[in-house]
Amino acid sequence: MSEIHYPAGIKPKAEIPHKTPTKSKRKLTIAAGNRGMDFESEITETNLYYREKGLALFDKRPTPINVVKVDYTHGPKITEAYFEAQSTTDYNGVYKGKYVDFEAKSIHGKTSFPLSNIPRQQIEHLKEVLRQGGIGFFLIRFASRNVVFFVPAAYVIDFYENRPRSSIPFEELEKHGREVKTAYRPRYDFLPLLDEFFLK
Amino acid sequence: MSEIHYPAGIKPKAEIPHKTPTKSKRKLTIAAGNRGMDFESEITETNLYYREKGLALFDKRPTPINVVKVDYTHGPKITEAYFEAQSTTDYNGVYKGKYVDFEAKSIHGKTSFPLSNIPRQQIEHLKEVLRQGGIGFFLIRFASRNVVFFVPAAYVIDFYENRPRSSIPFEELEKHGREVKTAYRPRYDFLPLLDEFFLK
Repeated sequence: MSEIHYPAGIKPKAEIPHKTPTKSKRKLTIAAGNRGMDFESEITETNLYYREKGLALFDKRPTPINVVKVDYTHGPKITEAYFEAQSTTDYNGVYKGKYVDFEAKSIHGKTSFPLSNIPRQQIEHLKEVLRQGGIGFFLIRFASRNVVFFVPAAYVIDFYENRPRSSIPFEELEKHGREVKTAYRPRYDFLPLLDEFFLK
Repeated sequence: MSEIHYPAGIKPKAEIPHKTPTKSKRKLTIAAGNRGMDFESEITETNLYYREKGLALFDKRPTPINVVKVDYTHGPKITEAYFEAQSTTDYNGVYKGKYVDFEAKSIHGKTSFPLSNIPRQQIEHLKEVLRQGGIGFFLIRFASRNVVFFVPAAYVIDFYENRPRSSIPFEELEKHGREVKTAYRPRYDFLPLLDEFFLK
């Protein structure tokens, strides 16, 4: 069994105790997956903050897993299963009664966001969300610049479908989105941007 | 490895081809899990219908699975994992811009719905949903009577918290909810009930 590299979003709880902080810190600086997971846990903390304050309710959808074999000899234990692609976005929830749906992406590049980071089905899902009157957006993190943009789904969908380029330039994200303020708690305070972009 | 009984909601795709229709039919009449799965697939079909018609967008949250071991020698293969309880409800989505959250339960009894079918965390989740201005409800199926009730979450939460009884009598569900019309497509047409109960 080779070294385990979990897809972004898969954090095997049972492994956490075995990891020393140093170990995971070192990994953070090298592994894209972990960087993504780091961003994910920051968003999880932000969502938790919003929930605790009663401001909004956002949940991360579990990663779909195709279960093939289950051993019930000592209670249900999955012995063969495979990761499946999320057919939707990672997060959704409710703010001021409105349906909210968003996806978070963390990338390494400094100058642009490659559309290859977005599976077609996420675009289709967000188109459906907007069609039903829901709110949709992306949180795009430029890890090396430590900048996070809030970008309305409508803009990303339009860029994705018309493909003036295969990646969205940093400057375009600055123009059509907003940089998300980073703080201790909440880590990324994007609720004011929901008000500004969608609820005025 | 003993015979596999999947928790309601777990349908291992890879197994479907191995099952003969007769086999699964026979199982349907005996196994609670399968009965639940049958109800689930009917709701999945209903949601698909609503999506195709552009009327609403509802998705089933994947069942959370705690991944412990992954073998990467021939691509990612999960070799040890465990089912986790859904900390939310099974379904959510958007209708007319509003956040909608619901849970489906299928039971065998004829006279009442035991509250033991609802995990505490689902009640807490639905309370949060309502607090944020979202829409929440239950679809409760009395399998043996082939009756499905649409019941607003607020009523179920109130009954759950005040516990006049440990189960909700059939007559109370009739009074505080609505029987959902059953047809070919959509199987359970609950959108008109969303309008009636929440959007007037």
